[in-house]
Amino acid sequence: MNESDDKALTPDPAEIPAAVVSRLSLYLRELQHLLRDGHETVSSSQLGPLLGFSGAQVRKDLAYFGHFGYPGVGYRCAELVLAIRRILGTDRDWPVLIVGTGNLGRALLGYKGFGQQGFRVVAAFDIDPERIGGQIEGVPIHHFDDLPAIAQAHAIRLAILAVPATAAQSVVDRLRAAGIEGILNFAPVTLTLPPGMRQVGVDLAIELEQLSFSVVNRI
Amino acid sequence: MNESDDKALTPDPAEIPAAVVSRLSLYLRELQHLLRDGHETVSSSQLGPLLGFSGAQVRKDLAYFGHFGYPGVGYRCAELVLAIRRILGTDRDWPVLIVGTGNLGRALLGYKGFGQQGFRVVAAFDIDPERIGGQIEGVPIHHFDDLPAIAQAHAIRLAILAVPATAAQSVVDRLRAAGIEGILNFAPVTLTLPPGMRQVGVDLAIELEQLSFSVVNRI
Repeated sequence: MNESDDKALTPDPAEIPAAVVSRLSLYLRELQHLLRDGHETVSSSQLGPLLGFSGAQVRKDLAYFGHFGYPGVGYRCAELVLAIRRILGTDRDWPVLIVGTGNLGRALLGYKGFGQQGFRVVAAFDIDPERIGGQIEGVPIHHFDDLPAIAQAHAIRLAILAVPATAAQSVVDRLRAAGIEGILNFAPVTLTLPPGMRQVGVDLAIELEQLSFSVVNRI
Repeated sequence: MNESDDKALTPDPAEIPAAVVSRLSLYLRELQHLLRDGHETVSSSQLGPLLGFSGAQVRKDLAYFGHFGYPGVGYRCAELVLAIRRILGTDRDWPVLIVGTGNLGRALLGYKGFGQQGFRVVAAFDIDPERIGGQIEGVPIHHFDDLPAIAQAHAIRLAILAVPATAAQSVVDRLRAAGIEGILNFAPVTLTLPPGMRQVGVDLAIELEQLSFSVVNRI
């Protein structure tokens, strides 16, 4: 790993530690807050501590992707927001589908945080006849059999899995067959991913464990 | 539960990078899977790659907390599970409360992953008269005004916030007044934490951003 703050070459994305990519999201969110509060610029030594990191960490992480700071100025917030969105691939709108409209699916359909970052939920799927044909938060609920047609019509590449654990694997295989390339998985199971499919798993108990560590250790 | 249950760590827990602590949760989950599949031992060079890390990373992370491996054997899964749970503070049952019983609160009340890790949701709170007095997944729904009495009766220290963003700050202040020390926050807002209160924020759009990075870069 290059320790230099002014690394010039962007490496193969596969070489970038996942922790760096996940901190990009944190930087992005904080920059968005700063912008909203009227701040035009921020230095790494201001930005880092707002998130519990050092300024050096911020500089080192961003150096993976290029040069973003200005001497004597720091980062221009709006410019760095755009740059990070480009890196993360969220400089575009992503149409997203949700599979499963139980409590979790419904909660996710009502979640405002997705739209704010450019993720637009355009369709939900279920197999319960009583739910199909309805809408939640303005999003139509389709039968899962209609997945291929709708995924293609909206050019959807990302899906959120909110189905029971027992159904998750078969849903994943059908999502891949319908051209979906990435899934956000809330089901507490280990999935076998078909070729060409990426996964990010959400394990909410992990967040509680981190909280318990922090409470127990008073940090 | 009282303060004497809390164990001091060496080194100072505040010196341990948050990334290390979050990897402990990943190691724990994988060790639990290994145990369930009948594996009694695992080496760091087996465990790391199962999660996308190197064996050296595993050894380095665990070295913050002590010596856990045996020469020629590796880690004993059951023993390391207990050790990590002790470090994370989940070697006990944590009674937890949920504030807000809309779709998100309901989804969280039905989430099986908490109980598996020792987090027991014992009470839910709302202010909607039509919901109060009812139960969801066997958990009683109380009026938020009854928070202090119930938090004290169950010695609750952790709370999950599933309220609208606009209500989040005032709820946090009342939680702290009722003795709550840590909150898991799903509301997409920056909270001002009262003294003695810790927070872990869950920003589900971050997970989608990580997925979009991975899909765009095909890694």
